[in-house]
Amino acid sequence: AELAALRGLHPSDIAEVLEESRLEPGEVVEILSAVGNHKAIDAFAQLSMETQEACLEAGNAQTMLRFVENMEPDDRVDLLKAVDDEVREAIMPLIAQAERNAIRKLWHYEEGTAGAVMTTEYAMLTKDLTVGEALSHLRLQAPNKETIYYIYITDQQRRLIGTISLRDLIMSKPYAQLERIMETNLISAPHDMDIEEVAALFSKYDLLAVPVVDKENRLLGIITVDDVLDIIEAESTEDFQRISAVLPFDEEYFRRPFHRLFWSRFIWLAILLLTSLISTTIMEANQDALHQMLALSFFIPMVMGTCGNAGTQSATMIVRSMALGEIETSDGWRVFRRELLMGLALGVSLGLIAYFRVFLQDQHALLGIIVASALLATLLAANLVGALLPLILKKIKLDPALTAGPFIATIIDAVGIAIYFQIAFILMRTFQA
Amino acid sequence: AELAALRGLHPSDIAEVLEESRLEPGEVVEILSAVGNHKAIDAFAQLSMETQEACLEAGNAQTMLRFVENMEPDDRVDLLKAVDDEVREAIMPLIAQAERNAIRKLWHYEEGTAGAVMTTEYAMLTKDLTVGEALSHLRLQAPNKETIYYIYITDQQRRLIGTISLRDLIMSKPYAQLERIMETNLISAPHDMDIEEVAALFSKYDLLAVPVVDKENRLLGIITVDDVLDIIEAESTEDFQRISAVLPFDEEYFRRPFHRLFWSRFIWLAILLLTSLISTTIMEANQDALHQMLALSFFIPMVMGTCGNAGTQSATMIVRSMALGEIETSDGWRVFRRELLMGLALGVSLGLIAYFRVFLQDQHALLGIIVASALLATLLAANLVGALLPLILKKIKLDPALTAGPFIATIIDAVGIAIYFQIAFILMRTFQA
Ligand SMILES: [Mg+2]
Ligand SMILES: [Mg+2]
Ligand SMILES: [Mg+2]
Ligand SMILES: [Mg+2]
Ligand SMILES: [Mg+2]
Ligand SMILES: [Mg+2]
Ligand SMILES: [Mg+2]
Ligand SMILES: [Mg+2]
Ligand SMILES: [Mg+2]
Ligand SMILES: [Mg+2]
Ligand SMILES: [Mg+2]
Ligand SMILES: [Mg+2]
Ligand SMILES: [Mg+2]
Repeated sequence: AELAALRGLHPSDIAEVLEESRLEPGEVVEILSAVGNHKAIDAFAQLSMETQEACLEAGNAQTMLRFVENMEPDDRVDLLKAVDDEVREAIMPLIAQAERNAIRKLWHYEEGTAGAVMTTEYAMLTKDLTVGEALSHLRLQAPNKETIYYIYITDQQRRLIGTISLRDLIMSKPYAQLERIMETNLISAPHDMDIEEVAALFSKYDLLAVPVVDKENRLLGIITVDDVLDIIEAESTEDFQRISAVLPFDEEYFRRPFHRLFWSRFIWLAILLLTSLISTTIMEANQDALHQMLALSFFIPMVMGTCGNAGTQSATMIVRSMALGEIETSDGWRVFRRELLMGLALGVSLGLIAYFRVFLQDQHALLGIIVASALLATLLAANLVGALLPLILKKIKLDPALTAGPFIATIIDAVGIAIYFQIAFILMRTFQA
Repeated sequence: AELAALRGLHPSDIAEVLEESRLEPGEVVEILSAVGNHKAIDAFAQLSMETQEACLEAGNAQTMLRFVENMEPDDRVDLLKAVDDEVREAIMPLIAQAERNAIRKLWHYEEGTAGAVMTTEYAMLTKDLTVGEALSHLRLQAPNKETIYYIYITDQQRRLIGTISLRDLIMSKPYAQLERIMETNLISAPHDMDIEEVAALFSKYDLLAVPVVDKENRLLGIITVDDVLDIIEAESTEDFQRISAVLPFDEEYFRRPFHRLFWSRFIWLAILLLTSLISTTIMEANQDALHQMLALSFFIPMVMGTCGNAGTQSATMIVRSMALGEIETSDGWRVFRRELLMGLALGVSLGLIAYFRVFLQDQHALLGIIVASALLATLLAANLVGALLPLILKKIKLDPALTAGPFIATIIDAVGIAIYFQIAFILMRTFQA
């Protein structure tokens, strides 16, 4: 009865049911085998890689073969890279020769590049065919291709010379030659292009697929838009994790084992804790000022908090704008001028608020001036550090997302406390002398 | 010469060149009119809405008509809603009757719902056609449709009863009836579905388009994957802004006028500053403890910073997992147990680090115990607040992204300082008595 219900579902829904069932991998394999039709095979391809890995390690090679053979070539490579060596060595000889060659070709592309997410199952034709012939060829190729909505035209050296959409194909006269109607203004991705840049191509040109080529413009594979959706989602998640100082991880929240989740969080918190001790050291060094005016300490959380917030704002904005391609590293000077002004404007207006709070509540004009001017100076520094650090990291080829969030806030805290006491020291000497 | 160069570009590239040129809207319209071909018309559709708006207000209605008529219906509605009333009233009568009807139909869908991003230009056929007839119909419809890769089959009441992909169509025998080969297991979006949920449908089922229907399952329009890419990008940007406490805005960084950018940032910083004054008040109330043990104040930045970081970590993780549909509000109890344990584990391990820092550097066991246990208690609270607040906000239908980041950090600061002094007070009384 339950099997019949599963058979009625879409493969993606079967996969979701199984993912959420918390069944043992062995049981998942059994159920998929019992469902038995093409939907079960498609459902396996939709499971998360961790589940696929567990299933492959739990099932026997003969059973798993048809599931693995049905996967998209690039996902299959990722899976085979992930499983234990014995499991891989048991299943590899069973895979058809052609597929094994595809695996070998895809094996060495670096994670995060176009080559590592492309599929080798694309529709390819030669330019001398007529539209009618092309459609007949396509009907034969279609069952094994990831998409037939874009068709790639190559020469004898497999170099990409044109593309044609199925839409244009069926709207053309049957006897027209492909050479005459193909699009030769090509948008393609080099195999080593960063996948975030590939995603930007899709969103800029509204594409359904992009061809991936080598340095000689030979066609290596294609990337389809459904995979791009997954890539965009994964890249945003990574940025969110970076921004909140969690070591990036792939699994869903509840699927990440406790000790690993602990570790992804602990390591950063510990680093940040040690960094924040700089603030402690600075305060210890300024004990005298605190003894003289204990009220100075009351405003430390407010000054530090506000500056951390301002730094986070500017860093997050710049990181996001860079991810969307709105800001380049060459815009550094423009960003600097804008954020200098912005820091001044925010510092003065927030400083005024702080001054009136101190003055009205504590009737202490000197303390008010110290707090307000410390807020202005720290905020200005925080805002500039927040805006420029991401650009600098990008320039030295580190991930700018590292800077937004807690890390920058902690550094700003230390800088801020130093500035705070420096200003307090100067003003106290000037006005109390 | 420059015009010839522009004519050689892809419409998206023409749009990019114009966006980055900082030309006056009037000049943009002139250039597009001079380029003159279909590419110029497509390029206009690719401009940002702010630029389109400025152009429409700068050009005369007659010139702008063909640019506006070529836009996707949903984008056209957004643009017509944005322009000044006189401009809209000048151009509306010029628009063809059929298009005006489409505009009227799309006008009232609420922003952020499926209805507001759908296009009405989809391929629709009836079930009694044969494959051969269907292909002939499609050839006629194709030029005006957003996509012909999915074809929608409706009955006489325009109710959606099936879909068929162009791929399946060209692979079927020419005399087969659509009714026999169409897919009847339909995935569709109600017109009032949140666009983030629509995006999740695309990524789950790997779709190129989704039909939008009303309560009676009548077909209203379709949403295509290229628009979904833009939606996902915009929604992530909004979440990044929320997380960093910037009032959400749409424009690119450099296109946002200074005073508006100032305002989006100032308003939140001011709210957070006022909130952080709670911490100041708590410290003022605990002056005696500080007079007795000034060193207490040295560790405030460290304890507050660490707890803010932990709260940000858990909040960001939960917000992101909810956005991806991995966690539902019904998972509250599971999240609570997991984050309670996590808070304890992190609190104990980081507390130990803090204890040794205080003990080794200051040789002050009591202070070490105070700092370490305050850190443990505050971190536990921060971690739980960070994890549970997004779930609570979601439950009362507010955006969970509001909670991650500075806002939560500021509240945690105040709670944390209160806990810190409470623990200091108890321990000082116990051990110094
Ligand atoms: Mg793939
Ligand atoms: Mg992959
Ligand atoms: Mg890969
Ligand atoms: Mg686009
Ligand atoms: Mg795919
Ligand atoms: Mg990234
Ligand atoms: Mg649209
Ligand atoms: Mg739109
Ligand atoms: Mg709209
Ligand atoms: Mg939304
Ligand atoms: Mg998908
Ligand atoms: Mg579109
Ligand atoms: Mg949102």
